[in-house]
Amino acid sequence: MADESAATAAFDVRQHMESTRPRIDAALDGVLPRADDLPASLHAAMRHSVFAGGKRLRPLLVLAGSRACGADPELAMPAACAVELIHTYSLIHDDLPAFDDEELRRGQPTAHVVFGETIAILAGDALQALAFEAMARATAASDDPAAWAEANVEMARAAGSLGMCGGQTLDVEAVGKTLDVEALRQLHAWKTGALLTASVVCGGLVGGGDATAAAALRTYGDAVGLAFQVVDDLLDVSGTAAELGKNPGGDAAREQPTFPALIGVEASRAEACRLRDEAVTALDGFAPTDVAPLRGLAEYIVSRSK
Amino acid sequence: MADESAATAAFDVRQHMESTRPRIDAALDGVLPRADDLPASLHAAMRHSVFAGGKRLRPLLVLAGSRACGADPELAMPAACAVELIHTYSLIHDDLPAFDDEELRRGQPTAHVVFGETIAILAGDALQALAFEAMARATAASDDPAAWAEANVEMARAAGSLGMCGGQTLDVEAVGKTLDVEALRQLHAWKTGALLTASVVCGGLVGGGDATAAAALRTYGDAVGLAFQVVDDLLDVSGTAAELGKNPGGDAAREQPTFPALIGVEASRAEACRLRDEAVTALDGFAPTDVAPLRGLAEYIVSRSK
Repeated sequence: MADESAATAAFDVRQHMESTRPRIDAALDGVLPRADDLPASLHAAMRHSVFAGGKRLRPLLVLAGSRACGADPELAMPAACAVELIHTYSLIHDDLPAFDDEELRRGQPTAHVVFGETIAILAGDALQALAFEAMARATAASDDPAAWAEANVEMARAAGSLGMCGGQTLDVEAVGKTLDVEALRQLHAWKTGALLTASVVCGGLVGGGDATAAAALRTYGDAVGLAFQVVDDLLDVSGTAAELGKNPGGDAAREQPTFPALIGVEASRAEACRLRDEAVTALDGFAPTDVAPLRGLAEYIVSRSK
Repeated sequence: MADESAATAAFDVRQHMESTRPRIDAALDGVLPRADDLPASLHAAMRHSVFAGGKRLRPLLVLAGSRACGADPELAMPAACAVELIHTYSLIHDDLPAFDDEELRRGQPTAHVVFGETIAILAGDALQALAFEAMARATAASDDPAAWAEANVEMARAAGSLGMCGGQTLDVEAVGKTLDVEALRQLHAWKTGALLTASVVCGGLVGGGDATAAAALRTYGDAVGLAFQVVDDLLDVSGTAAELGKNPGGDAAREQPTFPALIGVEASRAEACRLRDEAVTALDGFAPTDVAPLRGLAEYIVSRSK
């Protein structure tokens, strides 16, 4: 017990993230067509957005979910890539003039600014197709295709109209409206929460996790997913452009509802910590050393400054 | 032999299409969320475009590809739905102001005209996710998940940057340029050909077809895919808005290259017939009664008037 606590306490999540990201980036590089493969403009746009300096939080959650179930996280790498490709496509489309009309993302000019609106839309579309191609290839190659297919269902559902796209719709329709806290939770549960939850659940499924493990990982994912958004809202109030890699105050400028606006900054901070604790508690049934990355990521999500 | 010819000759492809379409539409209805499921605007947009009166050519090719391999076509229905959802999403995005800016499609106002540009983009995105959710669900439920996963790879690749999205990019970049016939073939092989080929190959794969069968179906698909586009170009020259369900002459107005413009109307007609014959010849290794629908569809593609 003392050893287990020591192992958990000794886990440095930022060092873990730093050392894992290059492997994720190498895998993404291998999945994406080369920048000079025809049509070059499309592949350049896809690569521009994928390699614009993301935190790789979702792939890290996939790998950590797999490790929680005692599996070698490397086996889950195709799912880690797929979820990052889906996340990246959603950012490209979300930044379009018809949506948030953002010129800056992760400190880089957005895809439509560099490549034009048409290529940006197509790059998003092609990244989504590539994500599911990666999932299908891994399914076909796996010793347990049924588990990969189940993870693929999870990911596709989280990306679709009852997940991320549904949340985007609620977000677009919420501009200028007054939402209550429950409506805002629902919006974020779909817009960002669904894919974050799917990340950790997919990792668990392809890592051999059973239904009980998947349910616990879902509870963890739902909690960190909402915590992530609460912190995002807090950073939008307090962050600087240099820290955020995008212009702060964008939510307020677009009259988008936020947790700090609805419940205040202090209550939002307390809620983020409560959600982190809820997430960590959901991991009680796993071996402590196996869930060290998931515990660390929950801590990181609440304490991050960008 | 006389009996086989009689069976083939007696096959009425238009009657086959008429009688199969309601089953495809019922399956699509079952796959799509209900129009009043939240977010209602998104689901209404998805349904508007899926049920705007398509010919269901791609689903028919999936089912016919499955039957060619001796399987019950109904087992391939999830793949038939998936390919139609991908096709529909591509039409929604292709009609956007950033692309062809079409107000009319299949005789109906396009999604962005009815629901606005933002919801139209999201409806396309969500339809693509739903397509791969349907494929993944069928994979998870199948006795042969590896075959379904292989079909899923085929479909995702055909939809992506080295398929449909790549062809869209070439198309956008071709406007106002002079393409030769080979470049135009390449453009259409990706833009429309890839998904048509994937349809028939996916049907074959989930219908238990081996590598030889899949290769023959690929040859068939490549030929009918190009024939389809040649005929599309011919109809754009000669068709009326009432026949086409969209405004004719759009290609010329957008300075998009076409086969009639490059090689003339008569040579284009001859090429379409040559491609039909090539497609039908590729079916020689299958049982004649099993490939009656594929033969009929090749004939239909060349003789259609809309």
